[in-house]
Amino acid sequence: MTFFPEIEPIRFEGPASKTALAFRYYDPTKVVLGKTMAEHFRFAVAYWHTLCWPGSDMFGPGTFGRPWQAGDSFEHAVQKLDVAFEFFSKLGAPFFCFHDVDVVPLGESLREGWANMDRMADLIAGKMDATGVKLLWGTANLFSHPRYLAGAATNPDPAVFAYAAGQVQKVLETTHKLGGANYVLWGGREGYETILNTRIGQELDQLGRFVSLVVEHKHKIGFTGQILIEPKPCEPTKHQYDFDSAACAAFLRKYGLEKEVKLNVEVNHATLAGHTFEHELAYASSQGLLGSIDVNRGDPQNGWDTDQFPNSVADWTLAMLQILGNGGIGAGGFNFDAKIRRQSIDPADLFHGHVGAMDLCARALLAAAAIVEDGTLDGFVAERYAGWGKGTGPNMLAGKLSLAEIAALAHDAPAPQPKSGRQEYLENLINRFV
Amino acid sequence: MTFFPEIEPIRFEGPASKTALAFRYYDPTKVVLGKTMAEHFRFAVAYWHTLCWPGSDMFGPGTFGRPWQAGDSFEHAVQKLDVAFEFFSKLGAPFFCFHDVDVVPLGESLREGWANMDRMADLIAGKMDATGVKLLWGTANLFSHPRYLAGAATNPDPAVFAYAAGQVQKVLETTHKLGGANYVLWGGREGYETILNTRIGQELDQLGRFVSLVVEHKHKIGFTGQILIEPKPCEPTKHQYDFDSAACAAFLRKYGLEKEVKLNVEVNHATLAGHTFEHELAYASSQGLLGSIDVNRGDPQNGWDTDQFPNSVADWTLAMLQILGNGGIGAGGFNFDAKIRRQSIDPADLFHGHVGAMDLCARALLAAAAIVEDGTLDGFVAERYAGWGKGTGPNMLAGKLSLAEIAALAHDAPAPQPKSGRQEYLENLINRFV
Amino acid sequence: MTFFPEIEPIRFEGPASKTALAFRYYDPTKVVLGKTMAEHFRFAVAYWHTLCWPGSDMFGPGTFGRPWQAGDSFEHAVQKLDVAFEFFSKLGAPFFCFHDVDVVPLGESLREGWANMDRMADLIAGKMDATGVKLLWGTANLFSHPRYLAGAATNPDPAVFAYAAGQVQKVLETTHKLGGANYVLWGGREGYETILNTRIGQELDQLGRFVSLVVEHKHKIGFTGQILIEPKPCEPTKHQYDFDSAACAAFLRKYGLEKEVKLNVEVNHATLAGHTFEHELAYASSQGLLGSIDVNRGDPQNGWDTDQFPNSVADWTLAMLQILGNGGIGAGGFNFDAKIRRQSIDPADLFHGHVGAMDLCARALLAAAAIVEDGTLDGFVAERYAGWGKGTGPNMLAGKLSLAEIAALAHDAPAPQPKSGRQEYLENLINRFV
Amino acid sequence: MTFFPEIEPIRFEGPASKTALAFRYYDPTKVVLGKTMAEHFRFAVAYWHTLCWPGSDMFGPGTFGRPWQAGDSFEHAVQKLDVAFEFFSKLGAPFFCFHDVDVVPLGESLREGWANMDRMADLIAGKMDATGVKLLWGTANLFSHPRYLAGAATNPDPAVFAYAAGQVQKVLETTHKLGGANYVLWGGREGYETILNTRIGQELDQLGRFVSLVVEHKHKIGFTGQILIEPKPCEPTKHQYDFDSAACAAFLRKYGLEKEVKLNVEVNHATLAGHTFEHELAYASSQGLLGSIDVNRGDPQNGWDTDQFPNSVADWTLAMLQILGNGGIGAGGFNFDAKIRRQSIDPADLFHGHVGAMDLCARALLAAAAIVEDGTLDGFVAERYAGWGKGTGPNMLAGKLSLAEIAALAHDAPAPQPKSGRQEYLENLINRFV
Repeated sequence: MTFFPEIEPIRFEGPASKTALAFRYYDPTKVVLGKTMAEHFRFAVAYWHTLCWPGSDMFGPGTFGRPWQAGDSFEHAVQKLDVAFEFFSKLGAPFFCFHDVDVVPLGESLREGWANMDRMADLIAGKMDATGVKLLWGTANLFSHPRYLAGAATNPDPAVFAYAAGQVQKVLETTHKLGGANYVLWGGREGYETILNTRIGQELDQLGRFVSLVVEHKHKIGFTGQILIEPKPCEPTKHQYDFDSAACAAFLRKYGLEKEVKLNVEVNHATLAGHTFEHELAYASSQGLLGSIDVNRGDPQNGWDTDQFPNSVADWTLAMLQILGNGGIGAGGFNFDAKIRRQSIDPADLFHGHVGAMDLCARALLAAAAIVEDGTLDGFVAERYAGWGKGTGPNMLAGKLSLAEIAALAHDAPAPQPKSGRQEYLENLINRFV
Repeated sequence: MTFFPEIEPIRFEGPASKTALAFRYYDPTKVVLGKTMAEHFRFAVAYWHTLCWPGSDMFGPGTFGRPWQAGDSFEHAVQKLDVAFEFFSKLGAPFFCFHDVDVVPLGESLREGWANMDRMADLIAGKMDATGVKLLWGTANLFSHPRYLAGAATNPDPAVFAYAAGQVQKVLETTHKLGGANYVLWGGREGYETILNTRIGQELDQLGRFVSLVVEHKHKIGFTGQILIEPKPCEPTKHQYDFDSAACAAFLRKYGLEKEVKLNVEVNHATLAGHTFEHELAYASSQGLLGSIDVNRGDPQNGWDTDQFPNSVADWTLAMLQILGNGGIGAGGFNFDAKIRRQSIDPADLFHGHVGAMDLCARALLAAAAIVEDGTLDGFVAERYAGWGKGTGPNMLAGKLSLAEIAALAHDAPAPQPKSGRQEYLENLINRFV
Repeated sequence: MTFFPEIEPIRFEGPASKTALAFRYYDPTKVVLGKTMAEHFRFAVAYWHTLCWPGSDMFGPGTFGRPWQAGDSFEHAVQKLDVAFEFFSKLGAPFFCFHDVDVVPLGESLREGWANMDRMADLIAGKMDATGVKLLWGTANLFSHPRYLAGAATNPDPAVFAYAAGQVQKVLETTHKLGGANYVLWGGREGYETILNTRIGQELDQLGRFVSLVVEHKHKIGFTGQILIEPKPCEPTKHQYDFDSAACAAFLRKYGLEKEVKLNVEVNHATLAGHTFEHELAYASSQGLLGSIDVNRGDPQNGWDTDQFPNSVADWTLAMLQILGNGGIGAGGFNFDAKIRRQSIDPADLFHGHVGAMDLCARALLAAAAIVEDGTLDGFVAERYAGWGKGTGPNMLAGKLSLAEIAALAHDAPAPQPKSGRQEYLENLINRFV
Repeated sequence: MTFFPEIEPIRFEGPASKTALAFRYYDPTKVVLGKTMAEHFRFAVAYWHTLCWPGSDMFGPGTFGRPWQAGDSFEHAVQKLDVAFEFFSKLGAPFFCFHDVDVVPLGESLREGWANMDRMADLIAGKMDATGVKLLWGTANLFSHPRYLAGAATNPDPAVFAYAAGQVQKVLETTHKLGGANYVLWGGREGYETILNTRIGQELDQLGRFVSLVVEHKHKIGFTGQILIEPKPCEPTKHQYDFDSAACAAFLRKYGLEKEVKLNVEVNHATLAGHTFEHELAYASSQGLLGSIDVNRGDPQNGWDTDQFPNSVADWTLAMLQILGNGGIGAGGFNFDAKIRRQSIDPADLFHGHVGAMDLCARALLAAAAIVEDGTLDGFVAERYAGWGKGTGPNMLAGKLSLAEIAALAHDAPAPQPKSGRQEYLENLINRFV
């Protein structure tokens, strides 16, 4: 049985290909800067958007009419699983990601949810064995059920915190069992709707405790994957505590978690927070916190999470430069947290979205690698900061001189001469490779 | 000699006053929740916008035609000083704030700037003695001179860092000499224009060192005032490192400065960063970082720093609730970092801006105090979080239970029942007091 | 049978009332500037948000658990109707508004929808007779059903256009039968998701034709109410053609509809488009296009339609000044297109939202009326433009002088002298009345 | 004498060139879709940003130190003229644009300004003759001088309106004398700072009259170039009446100017107004109003006019598709209203900005032309709307069927079937050509 009977496994055909559904740039075995493309990207399909989202928005119901979405039984979940792995396999995606509710109905109680999850985990394991597709990360959905309307870890009611703990324990253990490489916490409703009814300090303490509990449990069960939290500024809440990478860094340091937890950085969330994606990558990288990536973009004119597939080679080239500068994405990967548009109602549109995105990332990697190999950009930047590596620069930065001693240097030195930042030249330089 | 011959000292006349330039709510001696209004606010006039800004914008030169802005000599600075203290006194502002370049020409070298500053400091001290006006904070302008085009502390050239150190040393010492209550660092160009020529980690390390040097020097000279940094997301740079309170918290913790440095939170910078002002206050307060306040607002439809005088009682009531919740503003104060509009070309307009703002803050304090005294809001919130203070709540939060132990509680408890957040009720409640 | 057993009809109790659910300012019989408050506002409850929305958002399902939302049968619709009119009556709202799908299931075909609508119209008429509640406007939902995924009037498929025509014909006729005062067209998906597959000129021509058809049909059936279109910039589409009042004015003039159609201006849509609400009102009024109002606000920090109840007296005072300047809202009214928050799960919260909003508008009316009666503001503005009413001003504006003749005046006149715009003074003046 | 001694005239060297300052794609003689690149673009250098802007921003003075900016005498203006035409010539830009104040000091009176302009016009004409560089458009600066602080045409004082008329008359006549192809009106302060002191309807009537006067004068003097107005939503004012293309269309139609005036559409102004640039082009084109283009972009994260040189091939390919669809830019052109960054202090940076931008546009033209020649995109869109060209479609659109007749069609037809909009497929398709 197949849901995509007309779709053949997607193949690499090279840039000149006229086939709509072919890879022009993404060749998993191609070596770039010492690693294969497969190793660079570790692409993962997002179960929720690709398999579970029906094409609804706030102004209308679903448009896709997928048969496995006709009900919420375990049987529907099994049907969905079949389609999922057919899709992963035909696409050639090496990984997937899931929330508990994506793969199985959670029922009326924690106990029922755990039982269903155990039953489904075996089926998932079978599919993974059969196809070779692996788990990039698992996560628990702590934001959809009405019990979480005022947050999960940050809920004013400790009983909700406890229920959330139960969901996370099961998904963390399941992720461990399935050999997952990471476990992610996205705090969808860990924020507030109105500051009038909210104690921010109290809620942050709750959130700090919750993440600490997850870290402790990870070590207890021997899970060696990364724990990740995910910056997002708002939506569904007015304000989300994990606003951006910097807010996450402040949070992790406050609760002593900065060695234990890294960030899953998303394009769309970066732009909603008023940042470029490359900024969020560069900042996270500079703090030693870059853990994994969600590749879905927003729409620069729309102020909500549109979760679109990426389509800008130029933007992704800047992103890939940061990722290469970070030494790659490590145990993380490139997760498609992307929805096809509500009007994209053909099953093939799912492939168009993913194939285009993988190809775009591959093309951006090639461009970034060419920039690195060319060396002009890096050389310019190294020269720009060269003063800090010689003379009194290193001592100043190392704290060996006092304010007055440094000021004394300025008294006796000739006035500093500004140098051109050469932004236009550098932008043109990048465009030679894009 | 007077620049405002028609303006009498502004008096408190009560809410029914028909006088345009009178206080209707701001009565410095009135006691509210145990402190006088003067103690609550510690209002400060900003030398730069009020005395130095000529009414220019990016599309046209100054419109105000102030005589002391006709040149940049020391004599012009003295003339400006006279007008400044006439203004402070007639307004009844107990404090002022200044950058070095606001009060004196800095000349061609650090040495010349230091000499001019010393000479001016004596004149300022004389004015302070004569009028009783005090210094809320001093600061060095490290962003206007072309030498700082690529930043001061974060400049790629250590010679610029050293020059900046020289400016800060002198203003910090002058602030100390004048009995200033705080010293502020606003990182106007501590950020970047293009990530292409920028090493974020390197620049953050430079900034961390710079602030550490200031803290070390403060202790060395015996200055007991607060050191403050000021969140702002952008402008003039594309991205400023002190993006918002959370980014500042991450920064201070990274460099071990969180016990030494607090934040000067500004309304306009909060909204540019995508936050409400009350959020930034609440967050900073929850982190023990709330130091002082700039009261100038932005325009919600415009994406740049409009630096307007506040005019929303409702917004300020929410802010005052946070400030009262913080136990007040401590050694900080309420600085008007606000410009009258370019069209407000009459000298009297300077008074209209400040008087309206002081009155607005006073009215908001009265409203906030009434809400506190009424107790309904606090009672609602306390009840909302009551679960965390009883049963297993405190133990969960204190780390005495593991993830599995907490999950076990959820297995056996009845399903948690959501409660109304009552946002509409609370918003109506607030409006009864505004 | 009642759904709100504990709620008594809301009464006016005056500003000092301690009752949570009472009017403090809204007294329908109170005369302000020659009209009763009831006449000023013509408040209308929005069937969809108040009765039909289940408390869902993009990250979770409904939270309200209303019994009549348990199914989509005609019987559920009847149950909903009962609750609706209980709510309208207890609230004291004189009007309501509805989409066809709000009040009745539309079934699988246009024919079935028409039949259901006819059957329901009689029930609605009965309720209206029994309670005295009237219909402010009706409208057809042309955006939720999947057939409209690419627009209704602007759909690439004329069969969809025709289906939409069928829905509108029936609701327009039903509105006429029920004595509705207006008919509204909101172009929820009359826009585009990607310009790549879109012909803007073609789609605008379709939309122009569609609105013309509605106007022609209105005259044919003798409906004398206003036809209204509603500006909104985006959401659910990336770009909506009725972006703002100016885009609507351009559209209406292009298709010769500016005498036939007016605008239903919404607060939230104004702010999403980058305008203040008072701007949209002032612009629409200046063009003779102000028709009716949706009072729901957005959240200034969130970029989507939050549809919240209004809570700023100051903002609404500025709005009421524009509405008073327009001579009132005429045959239009004040529709609550507002949702209580997803966390506001108690039935009473529906009352808190509406009561607070009505009271806020009433308070703003009193403030605006006081400003008008005081006359200072109007006097200032009249004086500011006085030059255009005397000397050569009227002739210049009337086109009686050529460019060269006007320039010649400037050659011989003394240089024009700028005057203060006095923004700070005016903002303070307004705050005396708010 | 030369200001750019090291810069050789920029040459076309092809995509493989390693020369920093060479054209890789812009070959003025290359024929694309039947026109040379020179004819497609008609590139123009903006006198103000390139020659007059000193590198200042709101937080610091100029950084460039150009000798001709050291004073404001006629001699400085002549020195600037020399550099200007050296720059135009070395760059190979066929056109330039100017404001009156860019090229000459306007002095203390209109009379003095006219005399200076006449004197300078002869010098400009000489330079144009000598170099072959032509004038794309002239314009009067009606926003910098303090007399215009409350607007020019929309000023409350008719004397300011008259002075503005005098400036425009002279520049329009000078533009005519110099053989300019267009005359532009940008309403920098034709808007408001606060609605409290503003009568929108009155000001729009003034603006309508002003533009009408310009059109009348154009015909009187026999100027056959286009008159253009320029959409911008805000900055320096809070709200500018020419908000976007739609607001301009509404304005022109209100005052009967839609056959006489077209739009100068700018990238940065489009994005500030919440639109994509391609949207503004497509809309203006669909209304027959596309007149000319300013190519400068904004920064998507910054809310002010950054006026940067374009650097996105992908964005410009979408723009070029719209321009090709409009049949080209006609008598308009591509004006660089772009500033190099404040840090780009080397004279060569001026060349990097312009050369990169011209090359980018050329590359985008090649991509757009390839998409057009490929035909897949156009074919898809034509097929999408095919229904409107057959069956009852044309009659429905032509107004030959009533609402009821169209509804009757829907009663009897099978339910319309939605089709995929194929956004992901189309985005991938575009990326094959970019």
